[in-house]
Amino acid sequence: MSTLGFIEYEKASPEVRAVYDDIMATRKTDKINNFWKALAHDPVRLKRTWEDTKEIMSQGALDPLVKDLIYLAVSISNQCGYCIASHTVSARNKGMSDAIFNEMLAVVGLANENNRLVAGLQVEIDEPFKAIG
Amino acid sequence: MSTLGFIEYEKASPEVRAVYDDIMATRKTDKINNFWKALAHDPVRLKRTWEDTKEIMSQGALDPLVKDLIYLAVSISNQCGYCIASHTVSARNKGMSDAIFNEMLAVVGLANENNRLVAGLQVEIDEPFKAIG
Amino acid sequence: MSTLGFIEYEKASPEVRAVYDDIMATRKTDKINNFWKALAHDPVRLKRTWEDTKEIMSQGALDPLVKDLIYLAVSISNQCGYCIASHTVSARNKGMSDAIFNEMLAVVGLANENNRLVAGLQVEIDEPFKAIG
Amino acid sequence: MSTLGFIEYEKASPEVRAVYDDIMATRKTDKINNFWKALAHDPVRLKRTWEDTKEIMSQGALDPLVKDLIYLAVSISNQCGYCIASHTVSARNKGMSDAIFNEMLAVVGLANENNRLVAGLQVEIDEPFKAIG
Amino acid sequence: MSTLGFIEYEKASPEVRAVYDDIMATRKTDKINNFWKALAHDPVRLKRTWEDTKEIMSQGALDPLVKDLIYLAVSISNQCGYCIASHTVSARNKGMSDAIFNEMLAVVGLANENNRLVAGLQVEIDEPFKAIG
Amino acid sequence: MSTLGFIEYEKASPEVRAVYDDIMATRKTDKINNFWKALAHDPVRLKRTWEDTKEIMSQGALDPLVKDLIYLAVSISNQCGYCIASHTVSARNKGMSDAIFNEMLAVVGLANENNRLVAGLQVEIDEPFKAIG
Repeated sequence: MSTLGFIEYEKASPEVRAVYDDIMATRKTDKINNFWKALAHDPVRLKRTWEDTKEIMSQGALDPLVKDLIYLAVSISNQCGYCIASHTVSARNKGMSDAIFNEMLAVVGLANENNRLVAGLQVEIDEPFKAIG
Repeated sequence: MSTLGFIEYEKASPEVRAVYDDIMATRKTDKINNFWKALAHDPVRLKRTWEDTKEIMSQGALDPLVKDLIYLAVSISNQCGYCIASHTVSARNKGMSDAIFNEMLAVVGLANENNRLVAGLQVEIDEPFKAIG
Repeated sequence: MSTLGFIEYEKASPEVRAVYDDIMATRKTDKINNFWKALAHDPVRLKRTWEDTKEIMSQGALDPLVKDLIYLAVSISNQCGYCIASHTVSARNKGMSDAIFNEMLAVVGLANENNRLVAGLQVEIDEPFKAIG
Repeated sequence: MSTLGFIEYEKASPEVRAVYDDIMATRKTDKINNFWKALAHDPVRLKRTWEDTKEIMSQGALDPLVKDLIYLAVSISNQCGYCIASHTVSARNKGMSDAIFNEMLAVVGLANENNRLVAGLQVEIDEPFKAIG
Repeated sequence: MSTLGFIEYEKASPEVRAVYDDIMATRKTDKINNFWKALAHDPVRLKRTWEDTKEIMSQGALDPLVKDLIYLAVSISNQCGYCIASHTVSARNKGMSDAIFNEMLAVVGLANENNRLVAGLQVEIDEPFKAIG
Repeated sequence: MSTLGFIEYEKASPEVRAVYDDIMATRKTDKINNFWKALAHDPVRLKRTWEDTKEIMSQGALDPLVKDLIYLAVSISNQCGYCIASHTVSARNKGMSDAIFNEMLAVVGLANENNRLVAGLQVEIDEPFKAIG
């Protein structure tokens, strides 16, 4: 179920198939998530979004698990049910233990709380914290 | 500047001073951030919030830098200027390089984008992603 | 299903019926959406909200389709499932093609991403952009 | 400072003046807040928004202070600096003590935290809590 | 259903049982909500979150019903379905009438609207509203 | 002012200069906004973000002004001060009149209000609105 329906591999255009092939090869799976199958109605966005996701979420100065935790933290903050469900699973697959999940969640809760305490108290930024770049 | 003003150490009650002392000892500094000085008007919340912050942000299954990155990611998502400014500095102090900052920010941008693509497309959660616990 | 239940036309008070009648006449339909039937428990808010919706969403300097796209964009940003579902249909009825839907969604994704890149980078407003009115 | 500038009483049209007069009479003041002076470029919205604000925020089943606390709580959650500043003052004028402010703020922080713990844990709604109306 | 599953009383550790016992005693019920049973995988957070919830939501300068209304208002703003469902019921149990519910909801709607009118108009904070503490 | 400082054209690497050149050529200006100069510390993201912005915001099924209005609407919803300021100016440059601005803003306010009325009322999606694709 989705607004425009899902585009399955069999009915996909060559350019969409190329993205699907790269997703499956990169993730070593033969399954394409609903998100990509829904986004495939806009092949240009599908390709760009996949390329960005692949590049941004890959190993860099931060490892993929940490990146997935950050992604999950943002999705939880934004109340995106689909993203929470899918990235909980992908973080699991990258090694997220129960302890790591619990700690990530505790930080998300704390940040959301403190963000509002600060706003409600109208706290001025400390001089040493001001961006001066 | 803040709604209720700042409570400086000299004018603080013994219970507030005890929190300030623990903050300074834990963080090895002689400076109390504006957030704590504004929150000190509610000594019970000050103590609880500091204890939670201290415990949640400390070394666990995740290290303090990763926790600060998650905290910063949530604060950026929520547009909390104070929190972004203060946690950018604290993450720096824990070893956040420019590369780490850039990668964290890219993930935050991507998650915020994809959260909305998913919502706009009304994508149903894939069966294997559904929580079954 | 809703918190207070739905008020159907048959059981509605005269003032609620008057709003329902105007909704059906304006929209050339004999169906009242769940939103209005749930809101009808507060007849004053029902009347005001309908009048505002009718006036704000009607033809003006902007045409109704563009207004529906803006409404939908905000609802997607806010993760309001009901509003996304109902305004996707109403935008369709006003002429939203798949291409328009995809472009609107791409802008929503981009804005949500860039909003956070800007926040995370703590970018100062360019002098020429500052409101001076 | 605002996008379109402020419309001062002296230069206001008769319809805008009528709203300004009602604001000053209702609030027993001779000052018009910047919000209204900025909104006055759209006289229809000015009138509707003021009428709604006046009616919604007035004494009802809830008293005006409680309503201002709810308004403030939402504004804090949304990080709206202007609204936090102005409604902190208006709540003060309606009797908000430091203790009330601190308690309201603690609830806002807690709700924002728990909202995310619930989302991150993907907690299913308890049967007895489901809307059945 | 939840990410980590629910921890029922029978299978709970002594520290988790102690929290469950306090929840049931405080709320005069023999039911533990799904939220607590999902959070119980992190016993430290469970205990802290319950203690905070108990203390913050109890009678103080504000009464428990007003606090529940503020909690509900924030949850509505944040689109947290679980929290809206559970706190609508708990507010009912503390005396929320339909009239109170409708007025709370009208304030939440108004604040969310005005927060954006202010932001879009880029309204500068009035001098008398600026925090000077 | 920004977290990492601004990278001016004179000190930019060839790859960053290439993006700056394309921005100036596309927008027929000799000014690079602070956003791009702050983002330039991550040349890959700068290039991708600019390419996406250029492509997504250009003429398509929707014209650039409508796209800028949608972008502005999202930024207002998210309380992104920088984005509101810069896109108000860019929308002006594409022909946004005061009337168009006022109408866009009214829709943003209405959508934010109604999004919460719907959430608070826990309104079930009408059958005909459900995505079935």
